[in-house]
Amino acid sequence: MATSYPELLERAHLIADLASAASVLAWDQETYMPEGSVGARAEQLSTLSSLLHRYSTDASARALASDVASYQGDLPAEQQAIARTFARDVEKATMLPERLVREQARVASLAQDAWKKARSASDFSLFSPLLSTIVELKREEASLLGPTSHPYNNLLDAFEPGATVEMLDPVFDELQVGTQNVMKRVAAAKDVDNSIVFQHYPSQEQQTFATDVIQQLGFSLHTGRVDLSAHPFCTSFTSHDVRLTTRVRTNDIRSCLFGLIHEAGHGMYEQGIAAEFQRTPCGGGASMGIHESQSLFWENIIARSPEFWQWAYPKLQHVFPDVLRGVHQSAFVQAINKVEPSLNRVESDEVSYNLHIIVRYHIERDLIAGTLDVNDIPSRWNTEMEQLLGVVPANDAEGCLQDVHWSFGGIGYFPSYTLGKLYASMMYTAMQTDIPNVQELVSAGSFLPIKSWLQERVHRHGRSVTPHELITTIAGRGLTATDFMQHVTNKVNRVYHE
Amino acid sequence: MATSYPELLERAHLIADLASAASVLAWDQETYMPEGSVGARAEQLSTLSSLLHRYSTDASARALASDVASYQGDLPAEQQAIARTFARDVEKATMLPERLVREQARVASLAQDAWKKARSASDFSLFSPLLSTIVELKREEASLLGPTSHPYNNLLDAFEPGATVEMLDPVFDELQVGTQNVMKRVAAAKDVDNSIVFQHYPSQEQQTFATDVIQQLGFSLHTGRVDLSAHPFCTSFTSHDVRLTTRVRTNDIRSCLFGLIHEAGHGMYEQGIAAEFQRTPCGGGASMGIHESQSLFWENIIARSPEFWQWAYPKLQHVFPDVLRGVHQSAFVQAINKVEPSLNRVESDEVSYNLHIIVRYHIERDLIAGTLDVNDIPSRWNTEMEQLLGVVPANDAEGCLQDVHWSFGGIGYFPSYTLGKLYASMMYTAMQTDIPNVQELVSAGSFLPIKSWLQERVHRHGRSVTPHELITTIAGRGLTATDFMQHVTNKVNRVYHE
Repeated sequence: MATSYPELLERAHLIADLASAASVLAWDQETYMPEGSVGARAEQLSTLSSLLHRYSTDASARALASDVASYQGDLPAEQQAIARTFARDVEKATMLPERLVREQARVASLAQDAWKKARSASDFSLFSPLLSTIVELKREEASLLGPTSHPYNNLLDAFEPGATVEMLDPVFDELQVGTQNVMKRVAAAKDVDNSIVFQHYPSQEQQTFATDVIQQLGFSLHTGRVDLSAHPFCTSFTSHDVRLTTRVRTNDIRSCLFGLIHEAGHGMYEQGIAAEFQRTPCGGGASMGIHESQSLFWENIIARSPEFWQWAYPKLQHVFPDVLRGVHQSAFVQAINKVEPSLNRVESDEVSYNLHIIVRYHIERDLIAGTLDVNDIPSRWNTEMEQLLGVVPANDAEGCLQDVHWSFGGIGYFPSYTLGKLYASMMYTAMQTDIPNVQELVSAGSFLPIKSWLQERVHRHGRSVTPHELITTIAGRGLTATDFMQHVTNKVNRVYHE
Repeated sequence: MATSYPELLERAHLIADLASAASVLAWDQETYMPEGSVGARAEQLSTLSSLLHRYSTDASARALASDVASYQGDLPAEQQAIARTFARDVEKATMLPERLVREQARVASLAQDAWKKARSASDFSLFSPLLSTIVELKREEASLLGPTSHPYNNLLDAFEPGATVEMLDPVFDELQVGTQNVMKRVAAAKDVDNSIVFQHYPSQEQQTFATDVIQQLGFSLHTGRVDLSAHPFCTSFTSHDVRLTTRVRTNDIRSCLFGLIHEAGHGMYEQGIAAEFQRTPCGGGASMGIHESQSLFWENIIARSPEFWQWAYPKLQHVFPDVLRGVHQSAFVQAINKVEPSLNRVESDEVSYNLHIIVRYHIERDLIAGTLDVNDIPSRWNTEMEQLLGVVPANDAEGCLQDVHWSFGGIGYFPSYTLGKLYASMMYTAMQTDIPNVQELVSAGSFLPIKSWLQERVHRHGRSVTPHELITTIAGRGLTATDFMQHVTNKVNRVYHE
């Protein structure tokens, strides 16, 4: 009966190749594109985006999608997943007119440049007109994606299928309270001296060390590469071409190293997706939250652990002998785990990090609800930062201009980071059952069993499963904050009371 | 009446944007793409190529093209040129089936990787199976492009509209005789010591110097950039994003510098195309020969002249003081102009260069005629090199694997280099009438009037004119070898008898 599956697959390949091409152009824009090409690149991305939309919604695509139900039961499991995911994507894409998609892509390309200039000048007004347009377009998108109890839910769903404001509000409130309690305990504890983090670490040595580390963790440079950009990111064209970027601060050892380990976690996920999902709608992560679980697993659970530095610290001392001679490993581990309210999300500690996300979540939710105006973002940002973290940015570059996400229209994305933390801790609990000596392996720099476990349980499935299916299969239960709160409580105990 | 011009323009933009995207992917493959992505990139390029072909040949494109005749007389000149060029492109593209175009793109992407490996291993057999496929596909292409006196003419026409074997054979025979006469005079003259060329010149300093020079000539880094690749090339996505590559040999000052000046000549052409031709079929060079005239004009007529080095030599001495201290400017100019039979086209002198082209021209012509087998290329290459230049490569890396062109299917391209030399000399003759003090300007490093003259006479017209129209407007007559032979005779007189 499965007569139209080959045609469906051919169309899926076309769509995947177009999406890959657009991703190459977007990567290029962030890394190597000449400044004068911003306008032209916006037109190119808009054209590709428009073609992608056309081939995801035309009569052929709709016919292929509607045929799936009649034959999918006869297909092998992987092909069923591809056909089902194809049909769902076509259905959702068909809800959005090509004009809107094209306009969103065009504005996003221009806005990314405007955001860079605004951040550089610390002038929100250079970005706010385009951000207002983005918010209006996202509100329109939300209204077109069907009835929902809150318009923001339709944007969340694009990043985390099934997530809603109703689900996130209580989890985030609980996390906020739990986190603020831990922060109080930390504030009362003896202060940690983390000045070792802020010594002078030359750029090239930092990049080389970080690149060596991610290769040891399992990121392949045969099917990937590393470049510099204003904001670290990972992009994947196929599992054979996965690109990471990082940034370097010569007066902060954390920025390049943990940024790159984070992105390598995303990258290993993409490199590990099963070959049969290549060039299909299943050739990506299950959700942004699951994606973040992989980056945060490696960044926080592995690379900030005392065990990791048993392996890595002698190597780091070898690269920076003048700075690190005489600094004990445990002091270094304390320093990189110092919990302290800070202004910058990317460089904040594991504990207070979620408070940064909650600030952004509140702002996005209210922008989309129409109860917050774009021009009021800076004051709202600063007010919430003071309430939740007790710190206030001196300017917008340190504040509401710090993240790239809104510039590319990624509203609904930020909650994924916190979901990723919860998932990562749940996965680590399950991993410890299967690999009881996981800490010993980390101490010895033997990361392959860990990567293999993640590949088997998470990576290879790509987007053929929902986040809920994936996490319940692994953890035996649905989303919970318990494992995460246990993880940070243990961490704080070890760092502050050892 | 011009009711369908806006639709034609919209379709032209779509095609131009798709072509730009494919060019970005091709550039990326040559510069930064991870090795493991060769197969996936081939699929992506094949898909883009297939879409390009589809949108250049579907019923809408054919209708837009056939309507042009009915209204083009009412359009302004630039729009007429766009409509006419669009119609011609559609007509030619329609002659080629999508299957062929798709297969050519797929094979080209694979073959470029195979060529790199073959050249690295100096093993023609690693490249010859794919090259055989390329030749068969090109023969099929030639046969589909309509009746012609020689199948190679249909391939020549893609690079140099109007060029034929019947036109090239006598010009190339005349050049061969003239060149061999000059070579005999040189062989009889006092030998030039060019050992200064082969001292140690550190890579980074070479790149910085060459990049500074091309900016002074007029290449903009605001709308362009420079990278490294195995073979130097220029690619343009729009006039706002033009990318050059070069390669560096630390024991040869010529490779990086003259290679980059050459590519910058191409690049300034692309950067100088009029804004109204952006994202249209006129947004490129008039032909490959005219394109080469721009690169060779800057590389040979300007940058190898004694006047250029009056300006540049003190700067070069400043960058490499240890090597160049005590070396007189005239000795350096002699060294970089030494005429000597050599193995490598890119690094050969101005005089013997055309003999390299004639070898490739003969081989291509006979491959397409079916009178030469791909497996016989190495022996044919070596035989002709000995006959025309008196030198024989020690291996295929030095011989028939030295150029990238065949790997991307660029059969018919090589003659453009020689046409470019003839055009460049014709342009320089015309320029000297308009700018009598051009040599003084070069001595002073004042290149702007030269670039402006070229932009006005050549660049801005893009592909809105044929090469014949362009050169007759500039020179007052059609293609001739007279100016070029006069140029090299003068050069040899100055270098060998001063």
